Amino acid sequence: MTRMASGLLRLSALLLTVAAGCHGAATDIELDVKAQDLHRLDSLNLLVYTFLLTATVLTVWTFKHRRLRFLHETGLAVIYGLIIGAILRQLPSNIKIEQLQVVPQQTFNKSIPPDMLLLNLATDELGNNATQSITSNKTFAYAFRGEITKNSEIDKKATFDPEIFFNIILPPIIFHAGYSLKRKYFFRNLGAILMYALVGTTVSSFVIGTLMYVFVKLLPPEISTAFTFLDTLYFGALISPTDPLTIISIFNDLHVDVNLYALVFGESVLNDAVAIVLSGAIQNYGERYATPGGSSFEVTAFFKALGDFVSIFSLSLLIGASMGCITALLTKFTHVRDFPLLESALFVLMSYSTFLIAEAADLTGVVAVLFCGICQAHYTYNNLSSDSRQRTKQLFELLNFLAENFIFCYIGVSMFTFRKHNFNFILIFSGFFCALLGRAANVYPLSFLLNLGRKPKIPMNFQHMLFFAGLRGAMSFALAIRNTVSVARQSMLTATSLIVIMTVIFQGGAASQLLNWFNIPVGVDEEHEALSHNGVRGVYNSMDTAGSGGEGGFGELDMHRERSPPYNSIQDGSAASLPSTVPAPPTKSNEKALLARIWGNFDSRYMKPLLTHSRPTLLETLPVCCMPIARILTTTQQMTQDDQGHKVDSDSELGMDDDYDRRRGGGGGLRHHQPVSYHQPNLNYTINPCYQPNNGAMDSSTINAATNAATTATNRDEPYVILSLNNRR
Amino acid sequence: MTRMASGLLRLSALLLTVAAGCHGAATDIELDVKAQDLHRLDSLNLLVYTFLLTATVLTVWTFKHRRLRFLHETGLAVIYGLIIGAILRQLPSNIKIEQLQVVPQQTFNKSIPPDMLLLNLATDELGNNATQSITSNKTFAYAFRGEITKNSEIDKKATFDPEIFFNIILPPIIFHAGYSLKRKYFFRNLGAILMYALVGTTVSSFVIGTLMYVFVKLLPPEISTAFTFLDTLYFGALISPTDPLTIISIFNDLHVDVNLYALVFGESVLNDAVAIVLSGAIQNYGERYATPGGSSFEVTAFFKALGDFVSIFSLSLLIGASMGCITALLTKFTHVRDFPLLESALFVLMSYSTFLIAEAADLTGVVAVLFCGICQAHYTYNNLSSDSRQRTKQLFELLNFLAENFIFCYIGVSMFTFRKHNFNFILIFSGFFCALLGRAANVYPLSFLLNLGRKPKIPMNFQHMLFFAGLRGAMSFALAIRNTVSVARQSMLTATSLIVIMTVIFQGGAASQLLNWFNIPVGVDEEHEALSHNGVRGVYNSMDTAGSGGEGGFGELDMHRERSPPYNSIQDGSAASLPSTVPAPPTKSNEKALLARIWGNFDSRYMKPLLTHSRPTLLETLPVCCMPIARILTTTQQMTQDDQGHKVDSDSELGMDDDYDRRRGGGGGLRHHQPVSYHQPNLNYTINPCYQPNNGAMDSSTINAATNAATTATNRDEPYVILSLNNRR
Repeated sequence: MTRMASGLLRLSALLLTVAAGCHGAATDIELDVKAQDLHRLDSLNLLVYTFLLTATVLTVWTFKHRRLRFLHETGLAVIYGLIIGAILRQLPSNIKIEQLQVVPQQTFNKSIPPDMLLLNLATDELGNNATQSITSNKTFAYAFRGEITKNSEIDKKATFDPEIFFNIILPPIIFHAGYSLKRKYFFRNLGAILMYALVGTTVSSFVIGTLMYVFVKLLPPEISTAFTFLDTLYFGALISPTDPLTIISIFNDLHVDVNLYALVFGESVLNDAVAIVLSGAIQNYGERYATPGGSSFEVTAFFKALGDFVSIFSLSLLIGASMGCITALLTKFTHVRDFPLLESALFVLMSYSTFLIAEAADLTGVVAVLFCGICQAHYTYNNLSSDSRQRTKQLFELLNFLAENFIFCYIGVSMFTFRKHNFNFILIFSGFFCALLGRAANVYPLSFLLNLGRKPKIPMNFQHMLFFAGLRGAMSFALAIRNTVSVARQSMLTATSLIVIMTVIFQGGAASQLLNWFNIPVGVDEEHEALSHNGVRGVYNSMDTAGSGGEGGFGELDMHRERSPPYNSIQDGSAASLPSTVPAPPTKSNEKALLARIWGNFDSRYMKPLLTHSRPTLLETLPVCCMPIARILTTTQQMTQDDQGHKVDSDSELGMDDDYDRRRGGGGGLRHHQPVSYHQPNLNYTINPCYQPNNGAMDSSTINAATNAATTATNRDEPYVILSLNNRR
Repeated sequence: MTRMASGLLRLSALLLTVAAGCHGAATDIELDVKAQDLHRLDSLNLLVYTFLLTATVLTVWTFKHRRLRFLHETGLAVIYGLIIGAILRQLPSNIKIEQLQVVPQQTFNKSIPPDMLLLNLATDELGNNATQSITSNKTFAYAFRGEITKNSEIDKKATFDPEIFFNIILPPIIFHAGYSLKRKYFFRNLGAILMYALVGTTVSSFVIGTLMYVFVKLLPPEISTAFTFLDTLYFGALISPTDPLTIISIFNDLHVDVNLYALVFGESVLNDAVAIVLSGAIQNYGERYATPGGSSFEVTAFFKALGDFVSIFSLSLLIGASMGCITALLTKFTHVRDFPLLESALFVLMSYSTFLIAEAADLTGVVAVLFCGICQAHYTYNNLSSDSRQRTKQLFELLNFLAENFIFCYIGVSMFTFRKHNFNFILIFSGFFCALLGRAANVYPLSFLLNLGRKPKIPMNFQHMLFFAGLRGAMSFALAIRNTVSVARQSMLTATSLIVIMTVIFQGGAASQLLNWFNIPVGVDEEHEALSHNGVRGVYNSMDTAGSGGEGGFGELDMHRERSPPYNSIQDGSAASLPSTVPAPPTKSNEKALLARIWGNFDSRYMKPLLTHSRPTLLETLPVCCMPIARILTTTQQMTQDDQGHKVDSDSELGMDDDYDRRRGGGGGLRHHQPVSYHQPNLNYTINPCYQPNNGAMDSSTINAATNAATTATNRDEPYVILSLNNRR
């Protein structure tokens, strides 16, 4: 109504001015109206998605409230998206795009089209003065938009430039994945994760690519000629990465085995990175390196593409890791932590510039951002003030939530509104089939190989679960929609969209049943689980899955974990698992992958002392000749804190410092600088004595007094009380 | 280096493929390279600003660390921006924009240019087949960009589309201003603030407009003819809004009088909204309503423009307020607060959709977002879980910080890189002069008028400070850069940019000296201040300015305040100001503006009970005939909490519930549900017993126990300890 009314108003205003005879102004106003219409259309488009996300949030709340697990928020977002997309498709397009065929005024002799066209409407092709004087003495600029093919329409209905996924939507998702990685279990299963992600994704891509090629060639010639082997291989690369959002959320709810969790999550984080670089390399092989005429395999081109893959992946990794380390150094050696807002801003800016640097250097920003996230969590996080820790965690958790649900809404909506879909049911069916086989080719043979050398073997039911956790998601869709120039690419987009929708809704919905079916133990304490089921120590993080009752998403859990490892076990009524009373089970060196051990050693001896305030300092770990440098790189804070306190940061998650700790004779008694949490059914309290340079130790009487206060509260039957001692400057 | 290397690689790849004779593919690759180059350029542009912001953050930290107050972060951002802008200007532009003059193929007979041009390079104007076959069988699309004038160049060097300010940068800034408004003092000074913002800004616009017109007409004809009265009036509207960021930050640091703070901040928040609508109305008067030929004043057109002003402002306000209230209802009547992540997402989505709805309805999104922010803070905030409160506060604080500093960086950089600056020193000088006079015409006469009817008069030194707090900022710049089609507008942009830069650097830098100069009391407790200086009660919020030592920005302070009104005064060594021991000073009804009282009464009787869980409920305030509705709109939580606890939310900030409270016989004793905070030099602790429906009262022995614990900590000489009891479900 408002629009109509204002449109009428405008029209009358327009008529008035036109009647007044001032054509120039009329054109200006019309242009202005046009621009405002477009702006309004953009706003409406965004509003559709905001509305969809709001509806998703509210419905998800209802589902969580009623403990319904058959549909995850991403599934909901997709379904709502489909509904709205179907409705939008029925609506008439209200903005007509006016097109005009033009020709150059002079002969144009460049190999690429110009960036900008200048149109003066005073003359037409034949040199006649056009009749209308309105637009006569104005020149209008037009910017290059791309090649146009006959059947493609230009329609602005609820679609976005696909590049926004790579530049706006994916970076926060991927950064969050890195930043919230459960690093202890990730590093413990590093070998298996790298195997699945690097080798597995490549194998899966080639298996899917080859199979699809065979399928396609069985089809009628008008379809089969549209596909080259590179096309199907590209499809293999884009459909291989997994997005186990739904699964991970259910794992969290049901407290599933931590190692399975680490495998599923770790693989999915890394295979996104692998897939994006792999698909880029395949594209380069096709477009740049291979001889355009030749259809056979070319060795040089292959190696060039392989070189691209390796160099882009490792350079992006390097940039990400370096920027993470630079941020750690900045936060270690300045006192910016005194101003949490500045500190958080610095953190965000450094992380974002990682993405920009990688993109500006022609590398892959998404990959850089992933490794930046991991480094930020591993090093910088320890230097941050508690305020910034919380703020950055919560910020990226929220961004991740919004970005993820937006992309799933968009997948739903675009099924109906995006004009470049190409439905071919045989192709879609074979896509499904190949995606399944590709996943199997990743999981089972590699698990077999891994089990040959791995001590806690990956049991068969874990392998089945890994197979079924192979949902496809945001990355597959973003890669598919990036390039839709050919019929082959358009069919792939359609197949990918449908695979994403189906796996998210059905595989996601079946996850909790599957866990039951495969006899995977759920609902057990993380610690208990780890000890009994896999023989891996797991004193830490038991709060991680416990107490997650009413909280939302795994990010939330991470927040808990960060606040309260590792003494958190009064929960089960005894102090049995407090390290001070019960020693940790003896370490078996073969429990950990060799890779993980070497890295862990290097990390805790050199990287952590350099980049964080942790002990031992570089003065203790570097050879004598490097003492002057070591002295510069060690802060007073690092020097003055007492030896007991070197585990104040979140290192303990890594789970490999324990060895070092024990070797150095530490680990006994109550480590004063660690946050201490106690849980009782209706009494949660955290004592979080952050270290102070000059007076680091907190007197145990303080803790006792606090404990008394809390106990009093309990005895008085206060419903829920958290009592915390925090360091505040 | 990387770029050069990759460029060379590309070139060789290109040569290879071209040599192979496949022209089509070569064009594709060239286009691809071009697109990648543009993307890289965009990334580099953004990187420049990210770098600038990072540098600003680090320098600001140094300044804060050393307690230097002569330069605020915005001033720094501007200066860094100027430096980088000057450097960028010297660099050669590395991307050449290729332009081509085209003519339509058929006669085109519409009044506005087409949206899209289709270019087929196969033929030139004369119908000859062009020689090159490369681009022969492809059609390229070009999108409309706007009118081009002879002297304007198209250059992508570190500039952005001005619309990003209105769609991306300003909304979070304005929302944050509304969300972090100190509502108690804002509403207390509502009359004065509305006077300064609504009347004052309009007066100032007309004074500046008229003066500028006189100045301009004294200039040589080639300049004076470029300006119409509407142009100068537009300049008046855009230069009138103030942006006292720097001042407010210094006010915070120095704990300046709260009423002065409220006047300065409140005015600046509202006059942004007034200015944007006013400038829109002036533009509409010129473009739509006035007869293009006539230069004299037109009454109809004037009233149409006035109608625009009133309707756009009030409708935007309505949309903003309604969306705020809808969010409040959603958070009140659902239990989404059990899932803080969902709740925060809902909050962000609703706030963003306010902006979009207003824009889609052809209103002003920025104004809508401001009033949405105020409502969110006033109602929704009380329904949020503590997690979401913190998260939303911190999120918008961070966004505001980044957006603000970005815009100031951009002002600096664009002084050198934006091509449409037009330097005319007489104009710039008169702009400065008029801006000063306009500010004076706002502050002094209106203060005189206000003092006629106001009980705590606005003293002269406050008026001087209000005058000097008239820095110009983001809104002025955004309005100025929005439209740079004519010479007049270009000169205005230059004048505005320079006024912003100068006021931010010099007025901002002089602020702490000025406070001293004008004898404005600083460093006093907010409470103390309010009582002694203005005779206004100020039991609340004394923590607001206290304890802000090492924290960053006023948002930070707000967080404190939200957590711990209103018993926070052991600070001065006595329990004297605890309401349980000392009754509040008797209320004088004339202390408050009539407007504020009427609104306050309505708000606490109907709005708050409807939109939040506060007491009294609608069952108590609505007439008997509305009981059924009232029953539906009252939650169990609202009904079951005991009467003492109806002030659990942040209402107390409004400072007018007290009357109601006293009338109802409440207010005595220790109100159990309010957060309780105690301060001692090195002991901060908060006891925050949120209400429970079934067992709301917290036994005082719990508090005593906690107090003992904390006292023990103090006696043990723990450096800083916060001990808090929180409600956690």
